[in-house]
Amino acid sequence: MAEAAAVQERIQAPVAVSEADGILQLTLASPPANALSIAMMEALKGALERARDDEAIRVIVLRSEGKVFCAGHDLKEMTAHRADADRGRAFFEKTMLLCSSLMQTIVRHPKPVIAEVSGVATAAGCQLVASCDLAVASESARFATPGVNIGLFCSTPMVALSRNVSRKHAMEMLLTGEMIDAQTALSFGLINRVVPQEALNQTAMSFAQTIASKSPLTLKVGKEAFYAQAEMELSQAYDYTVRVMVENMMARDAEEGIGAFIEKRTPEWQGR
Amino acid sequence: MAEAAAVQERIQAPVAVSEADGILQLTLASPPANALSIAMMEALKGALERARDDEAIRVIVLRSEGKVFCAGHDLKEMTAHRADADRGRAFFEKTMLLCSSLMQTIVRHPKPVIAEVSGVATAAGCQLVASCDLAVASESARFATPGVNIGLFCSTPMVALSRNVSRKHAMEMLLTGEMIDAQTALSFGLINRVVPQEALNQTAMSFAQTIASKSPLTLKVGKEAFYAQAEMELSQAYDYTVRVMVENMMARDAEEGIGAFIEKRTPEWQGR
Amino acid sequence: MAEAAAVQERIQAPVAVSEADGILQLTLASPPANALSIAMMEALKGALERARDDEAIRVIVLRSEGKVFCAGHDLKEMTAHRADADRGRAFFEKTMLLCSSLMQTIVRHPKPVIAEVSGVATAAGCQLVASCDLAVASESARFATPGVNIGLFCSTPMVALSRNVSRKHAMEMLLTGEMIDAQTALSFGLINRVVPQEALNQTAMSFAQTIASKSPLTLKVGKEAFYAQAEMELSQAYDYTVRVMVENMMARDAEEGIGAFIEKRTPEWQGR
Repeated sequence: MAEAAAVQERIQAPVAVSEADGILQLTLASPPANALSIAMMEALKGALERARDDEAIRVIVLRSEGKVFCAGHDLKEMTAHRADADRGRAFFEKTMLLCSSLMQTIVRHPKPVIAEVSGVATAAGCQLVASCDLAVASESARFATPGVNIGLFCSTPMVALSRNVSRKHAMEMLLTGEMIDAQTALSFGLINRVVPQEALNQTAMSFAQTIASKSPLTLKVGKEAFYAQAEMELSQAYDYTVRVMVENMMARDAEEGIGAFIEKRTPEWQGR
Repeated sequence: MAEAAAVQERIQAPVAVSEADGILQLTLASPPANALSIAMMEALKGALERARDDEAIRVIVLRSEGKVFCAGHDLKEMTAHRADADRGRAFFEKTMLLCSSLMQTIVRHPKPVIAEVSGVATAAGCQLVASCDLAVASESARFATPGVNIGLFCSTPMVALSRNVSRKHAMEMLLTGEMIDAQTALSFGLINRVVPQEALNQTAMSFAQTIASKSPLTLKVGKEAFYAQAEMELSQAYDYTVRVMVENMMARDAEEGIGAFIEKRTPEWQGR
Repeated sequence: MAEAAAVQERIQAPVAVSEADGILQLTLASPPANALSIAMMEALKGALERARDDEAIRVIVLRSEGKVFCAGHDLKEMTAHRADADRGRAFFEKTMLLCSSLMQTIVRHPKPVIAEVSGVATAAGCQLVASCDLAVASESARFATPGVNIGLFCSTPMVALSRNVSRKHAMEMLLTGEMIDAQTALSFGLINRVVPQEALNQTAMSFAQTIASKSPLTLKVGKEAFYAQAEMELSQAYDYTVRVMVENMMARDAEEGIGAFIEKRTPEWQGR
């Protein structure tokens, strides 16, 4: 019975969830492609939303089962809807809106999200990596935005991609559709670290543990301000972040943190 | 007679044009400087505009004759107009407006444009490279925005330059006016590849052939969306690209491309 | 008496000022931390403002005494104000506004500002480096935005940081609070050169001398236009810089510079 329930759970929730020491690991668990089907996107978005107000969770690591991190949308699911009365338009719209909402859920999430990329990340899978705050990858990881090969330009993936890498690099990936390896992705600025496969989870967890030791309030305030100010012109960005800094200074965690620093002791965060 | 006509053609059209297999090669053919005189800019802009609606053309390669890719504006032509009643103001305005229009014609062009940089690219010549979607260069290529050396800051070139490389790198080029070599340009993200001179055209053509095998409709839709979304804030960029993706999915070429992918066959594009 | 006056001067002006050959060297002279106390920020801002209209000054080099370039705000000064009736709010606001004004004074300054980074640059100290037009660093220099460690996210520093380095790189520094070394800062695009400590001042001065040989008017026009156009969308940026170029062409220094170039002689700038 328990096994049957677990199987059922697996079918309904293609994202495996585990949590320990303030770190939530979300594992795409629909190999071989870990495609972003409607079910996968809803499961992932749901897990992220539940983590939002869970005080026990401080950092999120996004990982995968199998050799492919994520191959993007489920083309068979999409193609099946070409038989719909509207030739699939409503379903495609639902898919793209859900996907864009998922990516923005990561960016707007109050907790840092780290991509742990084992294997291939393509199309919306590459967009997932680009949307995370940090990303580590195994030496064998590869990245592509290959939509152009199937007549469907990676137009939503490029929103995230082009906010991470230079225009010439983004255009090379988008126009050729070809794979880049992990070292190239590192040199483009798409990811933060390349490590051997056997050190991958450890590297992601090491980043997560470092960040989990910080004040959750401070991380939330800072992450939100980071992406907000990035889209403002300079004087507006300063006006805004000055207000953010002053409020941050008035919070208990900054008083504690600065006090602990001056007194050379470990701070105790309260998240206020 | 034919030879005389060819010479005449050459004088009127300082851009040599050749086309094969969907690839248009535009060659700046006014060595040694390949300066962006009014005639050169009009010839180049005209060739680009004719290529816009020519269904046979899928990709454009911009190259040069001689040791200099392009040395920017024609300073002698500009200086001659200092004798005008308005001290040249109207002519300078015409020059800068035409140049900016040419650069935006590249960015707004429905077909990818690849710079093949042999030799030196300076001032508006460097801007040409930065304005293309992709760029490959020979090992001996060099790049500069040296206007500051002659009292005329490269203010229009920096629009393209600063949208390709980081601020510190752009400012180094702009404030010092000094040359950077091809490897430095590669590390800055200004170009995509550095190869030996003898492999240069082949490298550019290889990129062009890869891209020419894609659906022209998809390339057009994707390139336009790329530069448009790059200037939007995040949620606006997603709202916009979701619409682009849905329309792209409804087009015949995406249906064909995705079908071919699932059926493991080569797609046949119709450009619709 | 002279010595007592010098000491008094030092207490009131924690920035040492020296000038030669058109180059103003501003040295943070409050080791060991060179903290951005109110006094330090006012001294630095005052020195920058005095340099604005001083025709003898063409370039500014910002350097430091001691092993720390600048460790950011003065935490003891800020903590002391927690005893204020408003728990320090007014003082924190004053501090952040003054700091943001200082950083924007560098960006808006008509003369190029070069950071010469010896040792550690953290928090608002790292922001100082990012705010300068160019930066050179010694091999032992290190950079961090460690506010997250003390519960105070580096929200104003990230305005400058994120306009220099890619998002993943900025987020790594901001979320972990960890130091990056000079080579990493170079690869991120935060600085322009890494050299041995003994060559540091010479490298900064070499950049300064190169730039000081240009037309001050041209530098002023170009620097202002650079940061202005960087925040505009493409066609607006071209409309704006076309106007800047035409006005620059009509100025005497461009006529002289272009004339000198054509005649192969050294130009004589008049700053008009």
